[in-house]
Amino acid sequence: MKIWQKNIDVNQFVENFTVGKDRELDLQMAKFDVLGSLAHTQMLETINLLTAEELVEVQGALKNIYQEIEEGNFVIEDSVEDVHSQVEWLLTQRIGEAGKKIHSGRSRNDQVLVDLKLYFRSCIEEMVGNTEALFNQLIKLSEEHKSKLLPGYTHLQIAMPSSFGLWFGAYAESLADDMELMLAAWKITNKNPLGSAAGYGSSFPLNRTLTTQLLGFESLNYNVVYAQMGRGKTERILAQAMSSVAATLAKMAMDVCLFINQNFGFISFPSELTTGSSIMPHKKNPDVFELVRSRCNKIQALPNEIAMMTTNLPSGYHRDLQLLKENLFPAFISLNECLEITTFMLQHISIKDDILKDKKYDYLFSVEVVNELALSGMPFRDAYKVVGEQIETGTFKPMYEVKHTHEGTIGNLMNAEITAAMQQTLSQFGFEKVNKAIDDLVR
Amino acid sequence: MKIWQKNIDVNQFVENFTVGKDRELDLQMAKFDVLGSLAHTQMLETINLLTAEELVEVQGALKNIYQEIEEGNFVIEDSVEDVHSQVEWLLTQRIGEAGKKIHSGRSRNDQVLVDLKLYFRSCIEEMVGNTEALFNQLIKLSEEHKSKLLPGYTHLQIAMPSSFGLWFGAYAESLADDMELMLAAWKITNKNPLGSAAGYGSSFPLNRTLTTQLLGFESLNYNVVYAQMGRGKTERILAQAMSSVAATLAKMAMDVCLFINQNFGFISFPSELTTGSSIMPHKKNPDVFELVRSRCNKIQALPNEIAMMTTNLPSGYHRDLQLLKENLFPAFISLNECLEITTFMLQHISIKDDILKDKKYDYLFSVEVVNELALSGMPFRDAYKVVGEQIETGTFKPMYEVKHTHEGTIGNLMNAEITAAMQQTLSQFGFEKVNKAIDDLVR
Amino acid sequence: MKIWQKNIDVNQFVENFTVGKDRELDLQMAKFDVLGSLAHTQMLETINLLTAEELVEVQGALKNIYQEIEEGNFVIEDSVEDVHSQVEWLLTQRIGEAGKKIHSGRSRNDQVLVDLKLYFRSCIEEMVGNTEALFNQLIKLSEEHKSKLLPGYTHLQIAMPSSFGLWFGAYAESLADDMELMLAAWKITNKNPLGSAAGYGSSFPLNRTLTTQLLGFESLNYNVVYAQMGRGKTERILAQAMSSVAATLAKMAMDVCLFINQNFGFISFPSELTTGSSIMPHKKNPDVFELVRSRCNKIQALPNEIAMMTTNLPSGYHRDLQLLKENLFPAFISLNECLEITTFMLQHISIKDDILKDKKYDYLFSVEVVNELALSGMPFRDAYKVVGEQIETGTFKPMYEVKHTHEGTIGNLMNAEITAAMQQTLSQFGFEKVNKAIDDLVR
Amino acid sequence: MKIWQKNIDVNQFVENFTVGKDRELDLQMAKFDVLGSLAHTQMLETINLLTAEELVEVQGALKNIYQEIEEGNFVIEDSVEDVHSQVEWLLTQRIGEAGKKIHSGRSRNDQVLVDLKLYFRSCIEEMVGNTEALFNQLIKLSEEHKSKLLPGYTHLQIAMPSSFGLWFGAYAESLADDMELMLAAWKITNKNPLGSAAGYGSSFPLNRTLTTQLLGFESLNYNVVYAQMGRGKTERILAQAMSSVAATLAKMAMDVCLFINQNFGFISFPSELTTGSSIMPHKKNPDVFELVRSRCNKIQALPNEIAMMTTNLPSGYHRDLQLLKENLFPAFISLNECLEITTFMLQHISIKDDILKDKKYDYLFSVEVVNELALSGMPFRDAYKVVGEQIETGTFKPMYEVKHTHEGTIGNLMNAEITAAMQQTLSQFGFEKVNKAIDDLVR
Repeated sequence: MKIWQKNIDVNQFVENFTVGKDRELDLQMAKFDVLGSLAHTQMLETINLLTAEELVEVQGALKNIYQEIEEGNFVIEDSVEDVHSQVEWLLTQRIGEAGKKIHSGRSRNDQVLVDLKLYFRSCIEEMVGNTEALFNQLIKLSEEHKSKLLPGYTHLQIAMPSSFGLWFGAYAESLADDMELMLAAWKITNKNPLGSAAGYGSSFPLNRTLTTQLLGFESLNYNVVYAQMGRGKTERILAQAMSSVAATLAKMAMDVCLFINQNFGFISFPSELTTGSSIMPHKKNPDVFELVRSRCNKIQALPNEIAMMTTNLPSGYHRDLQLLKENLFPAFISLNECLEITTFMLQHISIKDDILKDKKYDYLFSVEVVNELALSGMPFRDAYKVVGEQIETGTFKPMYEVKHTHEGTIGNLMNAEITAAMQQTLSQFGFEKVNKAIDDLVR
Repeated sequence: MKIWQKNIDVNQFVENFTVGKDRELDLQMAKFDVLGSLAHTQMLETINLLTAEELVEVQGALKNIYQEIEEGNFVIEDSVEDVHSQVEWLLTQRIGEAGKKIHSGRSRNDQVLVDLKLYFRSCIEEMVGNTEALFNQLIKLSEEHKSKLLPGYTHLQIAMPSSFGLWFGAYAESLADDMELMLAAWKITNKNPLGSAAGYGSSFPLNRTLTTQLLGFESLNYNVVYAQMGRGKTERILAQAMSSVAATLAKMAMDVCLFINQNFGFISFPSELTTGSSIMPHKKNPDVFELVRSRCNKIQALPNEIAMMTTNLPSGYHRDLQLLKENLFPAFISLNECLEITTFMLQHISIKDDILKDKKYDYLFSVEVVNELALSGMPFRDAYKVVGEQIETGTFKPMYEVKHTHEGTIGNLMNAEITAAMQQTLSQFGFEKVNKAIDDLVR
Repeated sequence: MKIWQKNIDVNQFVENFTVGKDRELDLQMAKFDVLGSLAHTQMLETINLLTAEELVEVQGALKNIYQEIEEGNFVIEDSVEDVHSQVEWLLTQRIGEAGKKIHSGRSRNDQVLVDLKLYFRSCIEEMVGNTEALFNQLIKLSEEHKSKLLPGYTHLQIAMPSSFGLWFGAYAESLADDMELMLAAWKITNKNPLGSAAGYGSSFPLNRTLTTQLLGFESLNYNVVYAQMGRGKTERILAQAMSSVAATLAKMAMDVCLFINQNFGFISFPSELTTGSSIMPHKKNPDVFELVRSRCNKIQALPNEIAMMTTNLPSGYHRDLQLLKENLFPAFISLNECLEITTFMLQHISIKDDILKDKKYDYLFSVEVVNELALSGMPFRDAYKVVGEQIETGTFKPMYEVKHTHEGTIGNLMNAEITAAMQQTLSQFGFEKVNKAIDDLVR
Repeated sequence: MKIWQKNIDVNQFVENFTVGKDRELDLQMAKFDVLGSLAHTQMLETINLLTAEELVEVQGALKNIYQEIEEGNFVIEDSVEDVHSQVEWLLTQRIGEAGKKIHSGRSRNDQVLVDLKLYFRSCIEEMVGNTEALFNQLIKLSEEHKSKLLPGYTHLQIAMPSSFGLWFGAYAESLADDMELMLAAWKITNKNPLGSAAGYGSSFPLNRTLTTQLLGFESLNYNVVYAQMGRGKTERILAQAMSSVAATLAKMAMDVCLFINQNFGFISFPSELTTGSSIMPHKKNPDVFELVRSRCNKIQALPNEIAMMTTNLPSGYHRDLQLLKENLFPAFISLNECLEITTFMLQHISIKDDILKDKKYDYLFSVEVVNELALSGMPFRDAYKVVGEQIETGTFKPMYEVKHTHEGTIGNLMNAEITAAMQQTLSQFGFEKVNKAIDDLVR
């Protein structure tokens, strides 16, 4: 059964090819499809395309379906093409003629557009929540381990003293910056495309401002041609924001894999959180972090994949866009899992004490000595030469005390300021307002 | 001459390889290197690493160099590694000992970091300005041509009536959304990394808050390890924002190439703005738009290139990061040129009249007829079937009058709202505040 | 149950995360895992790590499992980590102690490596077969429609006469070139990694030459460290070869979408192979080709995704590599489906007659006129100017007769030579030899 | 001056934008443009489009220009659009009317196509030569250092003993496999597109077989529409082959950066081949390898960039393709430099002795002990458990003697076989035949 089907059978081969994984992927959008219809039908009644009685019937039936979805009792039947057809078919089964009217002034195109935007909003909320949890864990660890030093590397060469306070805090601040990009993605997502129909609007006197309010959107994609252009673009921008979080996680995972390596040996995890080898009985492998790294690198490739699938397509809808669901939907799940498991693993991290006592790290302190000389009046470039010669001639004496006190360094991590910056960004999403609107719609 | 050079000659082959294109690319950063030093030295004086007299000398000499750069009288000599060494060398030549002291509490790493951020800020300002100019041109054309209809396509199949008002307006609104991403890139850029030294801070009592204010940064990259992590990340995020503008331009260029093709024939440009063929005397090719498309697709590939060059690098500086300049710096120029030439070309576009009078476009109006039936009370799905049968039996009669009046459609473009949204985003950059700080610094 | 599990329970959260989609994806490798074990155990017996009796038992049990897989009666149980553990567990269940011995001289690493190579070989064979079928269909259509002309475009501007003979033939020849790349991927794949163990070889006196012969490999990945390095690299190169086929398909799909558009109107497909619209009853959309284009663009992004996931990993196995299965395995299925459905669709294509009779195509013939003048002795550049002036003054008279006779043009398609080139490449794969070895192994 | 220019001036802004970097990049193609014309004009004479006298004049003049290019005395003047116009203009200046005739039966499109193919051939030859030199250096080092052991890592965890013989040899074998892909790129490149004109052939009775022989091509791109399609495709495939070499180099560079790090400390380079730090006097940074890694990762991103710039373009020439020169031409230079400097650096590498004597590497030998038990009859899985328990209880005793003798392992590197495989692939390029044809053409 396909709603656009007229009298001609579409070849089965073609049908399987075109339906693809829609039935499976669309389940994630089911709730949001109902939400879109709840708002659309309220609006239709105000412009006399539904009677007040029909509206009552339709809203009741839609809320029932919403309930069924929430309870896990909703399926897309094999004979049905996608979630939109399934909902419409259920409706027509249950309330008859009124069900047929709800598609007035709406195309499959703007219906999918609004469903995706509603779904993406909920995904963003979840990713932001998981990012905040990891952020908090990192800040907590930064404070706990602020006096534990480790070598800082440049060019992967031993360079200067660093600390676990700095190391954890750096990744926390990285996530805070990532949220700026996520906020931009949120703003672009949180605009209403409903009413753009097939991308060219409708001759019905639709009230798009009303559906914008009902669905809790901040504003609307005004121009209907642009509303359609948002398909693919919203996905790409959202993937870019996700790729930024992913890049932060992947980098940290790389550090972890290095630091847990026996040549570094700075950190460890309990045996039950590592894995073994099929032939080497002594191995305790950091598989979780390798997989976090790999998954996150996959997510880093996602914006490019979306760009490759959408570039050079002229304006107007193309079926190509359907396939973006296959890339993006699993990436939401994957990124959330990576955030969660990283938080979990970090709750169990152990940090080695007194790492810098090993003699091979003595040269870390050379800049300190240069700076002492400079503070005592010698021009910096001259002090640099003096210490360089000491090192070459083997007469260099390190000063083990690290007195870094300026903003953002070992003795002054500024975690409070980093946290304040994070909170400042998070507060701009305004999830409560959105959730309030959705609650009002389904109650 | 290399400042870090001690007594051993680095092999010439190696030197050429490592210097690469730095001398050429660094010229674009010269002004910003001086700005960073102006702020850094003011700060050094407050913590007694420069005397008041030395400060006066240094500031005077730096301002002279700044002036020389502005006047085009600055070169990086072949014997000098990069812009930073050149400036420091000039300074030492001109004022002696005091010049040697300015590198106190600073590493090449944070020096480059702050130079890049200052340079990127100026690039963003220029790109935003060019985007605004194109936006305004698009809105102007949208208003001028709002009554000119063209076919709207879905699946590249004739679908529903559209208008040049919608078409131009859609790309304007697209640019407005792109500016949300650019604003996020700006916010991430507009934070001060100076004082992070080699990525692990300094034992000098630096006042990073002071340099933040002097350089007009909104805040600082607090954590010094994160400040270093910003290298590569800032570039990637900025490239992502640029890729969004580029995607908008590339899509419009594809439309233009299609619309100027003789099978469509919707638009044209004066002969002097098109090019000919070496063997086909009748050709008038839209090379400008093909090159805009190609350049913008290249820019769309840029974030991926940066990610490929930075992923899986552990934390801490790596020389790999130097090469990002080669990708990004030319992309700034390229995107600006694409924005400018698109604005220029659109000033000369001609739109064909009465496109929809051609009989092949009659079916565009089928939805209008369906909607009329629906408005008169027939359920939408039934009306759809009636018109479908009319089309199959050849009895369909189009209604040529287009009465689309809801928000964002042919009769109600909402260009004022789109412009207001654009302005609202642009106002958040705060370029004036930044420029004021820079003016104060060099005056 | 995990074979490397000692006395400590791995946290369930971690286990789910690390197993990922392996159980599902590994099913595709099950047959090949058994093949690898059949060869490995034959070899073990020759170096006295299995007795002759044990070998008989093991080979019998393995062949039974192979049979069960072929019949669809094989599952990976939820309590089992992956296909390798499942096969080994079944074996131990069925034949006891001897089953435990088959992992001697083998690591999970080289076991997966050889499984992947065997699986990839079968995937390549299937893709090559489907490519050949499409190639043959294209050559057939090229011959059938060689006298049907269409406009040739450059810059998407009407340029010179082309023909469907040329158009179909061009894509056939493109596939022939793509097979050169696929052959390179095949050669790189068709080398035996078994015996490299965990990437550092074994202290057992393994006979890798023997397993190479038994499994029908052309030669071996000699160096054991390189054998391990082949993971990720083989995948990337195979994806590159696939991306070349995909690029050919995507380009043809773009042409089809353009040619089926009403402004071009060169080709059509039966209604049952196109799809409709939920609001526009006249639409017949080329969804199949849009989805072929989109899927193939996704495949074009695949090599980059693999590179992003593997770049900057030091030598030696990393768990990151496991995730490459998620990208590549579905891509095999997708590309095969795209090849099959394109062949199917092209069996039903209709070509419009007399396309060039439309007056708008008159200028196509301008070069013919220029060439006539040149053949009659006028220098080419002068002839070009003469015709250019005729066009500008409206006095140009086309010559509708197309007399293109040189190699590869309208009147001389050289399809026989193209077919010979294709066959020459295909003959180098040597699938028969490989299949013979596999048959010998399982019989 | 532009040859396709008629009476209308193209706006200067547009001209600058469209010419882009062509004058600079085209210089690299100058020689090859002359070669193409030498062959084309010989052919033109055989079909009476040039007289025998004209041919003599034209060939002489072209050979002079070729000579001037070889001597570095050729420039593209600012008033001239590109190399093709420059050569044609010089010719017309020097020999008058005959010069105007050489463009008969040729379009700018197939002229550029053949120039690119000839240029790419010479680039491939150079890259293959440099790859062979590095290969030989690696094999030499593998033999020299075959008895020096280092830890083998999996999951970046200490796993099993490896050797520098294996490590160098692995990268040699990797290059050998990369040459398979390069050979495929060569085969696809080494086909003649000349005679395809603007992508639709010519009405002149061109003899494409003759130019194929004269230019030393293996065969021709038969179908003229496909010949044009080769633009962009050839570049992409060549970039893919280059990316494979680049991936090998980048991986080795990553290993080097790790092995030179003080926590590993396996290798070192002379001070004059490393670089220092502006603030840390003890640093000796492996900048060369970081830059090799970064450049090679940039090259790894190149095929994707080309795909992004060409995907979804319908068949037929588009100006977009011009920009591919900007990506690819510098990549040839960059990859050649990376190959050369890596060979150079490896000539100066020092390997630490007795690395495995450090106690932290004891567990490397656990598999040896497991295998000993297995060889003595204990089932492998049981032996594995025994040793696992020894390790957990601290009773494990390593066996320091490494007796790996099978194919491709520490005691049996098979470098001769790897070298033979390399040579076998290299012999298939057939550069001599190509160079002989070119010599005949210019003599």
